[in-house]
Amino acid sequence: MPHPFEEFRAKRQAGNEKLLDTENLVTKRLMSLDKQAYKDAALPANIKELLALTASMVLRCNDCIDYHLETTVKMGYSREEIDEAIGIALLVGGSIVIPHARHAAESLDFLFTENQAQT
Amino acid sequence: MPHPFEEFRAKRQAGNEKLLDTENLVTKRLMSLDKQAYKDAALPANIKELLALTASMVLRCNDCIDYHLETTVKMGYSREEIDEAIGIALLVGGSIVIPHARHAAESLDFLFTENQAQT
Amino acid sequence: MPHPFEEFRAKRQAGNEKLLDTENLVTKRLMSLDKQAYKDAALPANIKELLALTASMVLRCNDCIDYHLETTVKMGYSREEIDEAIGIALLVGGSIVIPHARHAAESLDFLFTENQAQT
Amino acid sequence: MPHPFEEFRAKRQAGNEKLLDTENLVTKRLMSLDKQAYKDAALPANIKELLALTASMVLRCNDCIDYHLETTVKMGYSREEIDEAIGIALLVGGSIVIPHARHAAESLDFLFTENQAQT
Amino acid sequence: MPHPFEEFRAKRQAGNEKLLDTENLVTKRLMSLDKQAYKDAALPANIKELLALTASMVLRCNDCIDYHLETTVKMGYSREEIDEAIGIALLVGGSIVIPHARHAAESLDFLFTENQAQT
Amino acid sequence: MPHPFEEFRAKRQAGNEKLLDTENLVTKRLMSLDKQAYKDAALPANIKELLALTASMVLRCNDCIDYHLETTVKMGYSREEIDEAIGIALLVGGSIVIPHARHAAESLDFLFTENQAQT
Repeated sequence: MPHPFEEFRAKRQAGNEKLLDTENLVTKRLMSLDKQAYKDAALPANIKELLALTASMVLRCNDCIDYHLETTVKMGYSREEIDEAIGIALLVGGSIVIPHARHAAESLDFLFTENQAQT
Repeated sequence: MPHPFEEFRAKRQAGNEKLLDTENLVTKRLMSLDKQAYKDAALPANIKELLALTASMVLRCNDCIDYHLETTVKMGYSREEIDEAIGIALLVGGSIVIPHARHAAESLDFLFTENQAQT
Repeated sequence: MPHPFEEFRAKRQAGNEKLLDTENLVTKRLMSLDKQAYKDAALPANIKELLALTASMVLRCNDCIDYHLETTVKMGYSREEIDEAIGIALLVGGSIVIPHARHAAESLDFLFTENQAQT
Repeated sequence: MPHPFEEFRAKRQAGNEKLLDTENLVTKRLMSLDKQAYKDAALPANIKELLALTASMVLRCNDCIDYHLETTVKMGYSREEIDEAIGIALLVGGSIVIPHARHAAESLDFLFTENQAQT
Repeated sequence: MPHPFEEFRAKRQAGNEKLLDTENLVTKRLMSLDKQAYKDAALPANIKELLALTASMVLRCNDCIDYHLETTVKMGYSREEIDEAIGIALLVGGSIVIPHARHAAESLDFLFTENQAQT
Repeated sequence: MPHPFEEFRAKRQAGNEKLLDTENLVTKRLMSLDKQAYKDAALPANIKELLALTASMVLRCNDCIDYHLETTVKMGYSREEIDEAIGIALLVGGSIVIPHARHAAESLDFLFTENQAQT
């Protein structure tokens, strides 16, 4: 039985493909901009991912949180570093963000376990 | 096995009936206003539904999105037209709205399939 | 088979324990402040819980709504009183809050049934 | 020279009159519901005003905050009680609410001074 | 002395020019997408502007509201039609949107007066 | 005549002092947590300020944006780096964030001019 995070991955990829099938110019361009925005430039890519994770936490979007948790773990941030970004999000966004911090903690357990298994 | 959209319909109707059982004046009046607001007036009903769909997208409420997708499809908007309203919502609301656009795309697949089957 | 509200309780408690395991100072202090803030002071604890319930409704966080519904029922508010707080939240937050009012009505049915069974 | 709070009062009243001139059914009915919702019922009017104040704080609307500060002061809440409602709003809504708590503190200074002058 | 709406126009244009001076790729591309998105396509441009106005109302951004009020008036919508879009925004977004509806009513008085003077 | 940013600084400091006068435990503790959270730890202080800036942008709070612009400039970020953080906020939060990006660009002009004058 797949872990909820693996289901999220599959559902997200299928959804994005479906979304790009719609031939809508604005949607296509926003999604391509979303791909290009997180590259190394004046700020390194990993910091941009951490910025997007914090933004996703205060805006309370679990799918967005999970995606940026995956990228920040891939880019080498430690659990302690990611937890500090989550702490800033909790402080800025308040106790209403706590359920999303609980969700993030579960996803991080999965991602760091998967990470170790791969090394 | 029912499609998720059919489960949404059933759950929404049961929930609204339960809500109207509560005898709360403010809730009852807000819900009756919600019924009256989308009728033809200076603006035709179908445009009002498209406005509510876009508002539901930028406010990121999947149940609200699904309900207004159903009404906009019923009222005869094409997939291309609804996708353009979704594109405006993505632009105004940003990439945080993308997961809701993925959700909307799945619901639209169901609604247009159901629509064709009925004709 | 457990009621969805019982699953919420179990998941919430497990999640909070996991969250407190993270040793992040900001998270720990925000969560301890969250425990202390709802005690009797100039305002009685039950009114503070009703304030937090209304805030959770307009901010549209079901987990937060369920938690404060449980505390307000425990503290002795009647269904009519809680429904009026929900009505205020619907008026302030608009029809986008209706799906959360439907969710709250289901949770309240469970909580008041459980409450009677215990007396 | 009028105090900013007095300017808010004048501007709000003129704006509401203008708004009611627009002959729009939905706007008229929502505004009349807004007048009726805060009357004594299962919950006393003063608690409903405190709920709306907290909701206005977490939704970060200064005009809404000022209006409900005025009503809560008129209804006899002490500075300490109102400050506790603001504290709950800060905790639930996070540090992003602090600028609105600063605004509320200024408005409360004016309102309690005005209140004493009238007694 | 310029009308507040004229000051908004001047400040907005100066701000956009400054923003485009920053040479930031993401900002530049988002702003160019913002220009292209509102052209006639499956949906006519005027309906897209009405969608963006409603989205701006429920997201409570006065600058965004003023900009889309200007475009919807330019595109020939009547006061009654625009007021209905505002009514939908009030219903979906709740009483927290009322201060923005007051702001919109003032802007509309200016825009329709200016419009008549030009004909 | 003071620059708007200098007026913001003075008003913010006066407001925080007033806020801390209120003797409210929750407010005092949240504000002290707000001071402690941005210190060097697993993440350096400057990255935390950049996270808070991005969160303030997507949550659309100009006072919060100005405060974190001031700290990020003080901590040595270049205009290009801060503009990239703003770009991420625009992408995540959408075109509704553009007015706040315009505000940020004006504040940054002031802050970098002030910075050069001091060196």
